[in-house]
Amino acid sequence: MPPTYEDVLRAEQAIAGVAHHTPVLTSSTADAMTGATLFFKCENFQRMGAFKFRGAYNAIRSLDPTQRRAGVLAFSSGNHAQAIALSARLLGVKATIVMPADAPAAKLAATRDYGGEVITYDRFREDRAALARRIADERGLTLIPPFDHPMVIAGQGTAAKELLDETGALDALVVCVGGGGLIGGCALAAAAIAPRCDVIGVEPAAGDDMRQSFDRGEIVEIPVPQTIADGAMTTRPGELTFPIVRRHVRRIVTVDDAKLVRTMRFFAERMKMIVEPTGCLAAAAVLWGDLPLRGRRVGVIVSGGNVDLDRFAALTGPGG
Amino acid sequence: MPPTYEDVLRAEQAIAGVAHHTPVLTSSTADAMTGATLFFKCENFQRMGAFKFRGAYNAIRSLDPTQRRAGVLAFSSGNHAQAIALSARLLGVKATIVMPADAPAAKLAATRDYGGEVITYDRFREDRAALARRIADERGLTLIPPFDHPMVIAGQGTAAKELLDETGALDALVVCVGGGGLIGGCALAAAAIAPRCDVIGVEPAAGDDMRQSFDRGEIVEIPVPQTIADGAMTTRPGELTFPIVRRHVRRIVTVDDAKLVRTMRFFAERMKMIVEPTGCLAAAAVLWGDLPLRGRRVGVIVSGGNVDLDRFAALTGPGG
Repeated sequence: MPPTYEDVLRAEQAIAGVAHHTPVLTSSTADAMTGATLFFKCENFQRMGAFKFRGAYNAIRSLDPTQRRAGVLAFSSGNHAQAIALSARLLGVKATIVMPADAPAAKLAATRDYGGEVITYDRFREDRAALARRIADERGLTLIPPFDHPMVIAGQGTAAKELLDETGALDALVVCVGGGGLIGGCALAAAAIAPRCDVIGVEPAAGDDMRQSFDRGEIVEIPVPQTIADGAMTTRPGELTFPIVRRHVRRIVTVDDAKLVRTMRFFAERMKMIVEPTGCLAAAAVLWGDLPLRGRRVGVIVSGGNVDLDRFAALTGPGG
Repeated sequence: MPPTYEDVLRAEQAIAGVAHHTPVLTSSTADAMTGATLFFKCENFQRMGAFKFRGAYNAIRSLDPTQRRAGVLAFSSGNHAQAIALSARLLGVKATIVMPADAPAAKLAATRDYGGEVITYDRFREDRAALARRIADERGLTLIPPFDHPMVIAGQGTAAKELLDETGALDALVVCVGGGGLIGGCALAAAAIAPRCDVIGVEPAAGDDMRQSFDRGEIVEIPVPQTIADGAMTTRPGELTFPIVRRHVRRIVTVDDAKLVRTMRFFAERMKMIVEPTGCLAAAAVLWGDLPLRGRRVGVIVSGGNVDLDRFAALTGPGG
């Protein structure tokens, strides 16, 4: 069942008082650069550092008591893993996370810190989806996918709902695109609250599976992209997310990694915040792209801030 | 004339819609570390990156038309210079800033970018206060000091007013101390709105002029302190700020530079924000000090975020 705006409203109730109501920041400098009035919805300040908490918490909370008792499973090496681990802990549910054995030690540790049981696999020998399904079957766990799940999509949509509630009508809403969970949920919210708001998706140039699919009108699969936007390395849109994007999103654009680095530096120097490369996608298109935004009121989702300080320094430093 | 809470209320009106109403962030991790419920008032997200904008704007706005036409002057190598330059530009007033010739190029450039005329001097040969007074006299400019001015103090107090309006009553409010402008204004606001709230000041261990003065009951002057908290390198409290601190502040504590670095890293890794060393003072005392905060609702002013990315990386990196 595809999610609806009603599901976004229910998700908003479900996460109230648990997820952070993240701040909306503005920047005179960014406004001067673009000629637009920009509103940055800062999901880098969300719990565990990314919007993913919204969808994960909403999905686990919507399970029935039997499913909750059995526990949940996710496969992810990124923010979804931590979002599931933290959400499960808060809801008293056991979480099992399947991660590659060579994932960064910090990410393995963070997922365990949030209370998740980590099962590692060999990326070069094992099919993680098959492994995850096998473990889920054996243990009776409910698999929570990172984006292609109605309650995940509905949860992510609460970010746009909060933003629009705070700013009032916007002319455009710019959102990063990985598998389409965030933009799908945000597009549902925008279509209901602000139907004249153009929703614009932004992908890494190297990983434009959604743009290709959008332009062709059917799901296109691409090889695993090489980009510093590690949260948007999907190879194809979701079965649930793609129809929502087709229906409610105006266009999909791309930005290259160099612009993501410039945006990270802009956020750090001018707005004093740490944003991970994937979290810079929407802002990069707004600040250094050619979107026609002059004179318009534009929402920009800053999706996450989980980047190691060493990597942050390497990317934004003189050699970055 | 010492400022009163009425002046804070007038300052709030004066800066409304111009200064940012900065967000209040929370952190489950910080709460777990301290056993308290912490509310971080994030003035690093203020215009030009620090609370200083509040006081500077309020002070210039309170000038009479003749003074405004003549222009203002400030001597500062830090956030006050940029705050005056930006505020003056926004109010159509000419700003002259006296800065050391060997100030970081980035700070000189930033002050000029904000529209200020920069006059440099030789730190080793010239007395900047005397130079500034001479220029002010010659040109008929109004000198706006960095903290010891009633409208500056009242402006800074709006940070605590906003925080208390948002959180409701607090048991304690922890504020960094340089010359005492921020804590003076915040203490006026807290005394009026939340009289049972303990206001606690935090200085760098190497620069405890306010603590010594507070403990002795009279202004004590110290040599120029060596600390990474470059916004709190004052040598003595202000004539206006000290009596307010004596009357309304519960205690003054200190933290060393190593704790400021740990706090910078905490803010970056866990809260995804960039805070300058001085801006870490209050949080450092809360996170790594021995204040009795368990079970209490505590406001923490995060005063600024103006630190070069290179310096940020050097301080928070593996060798930092």
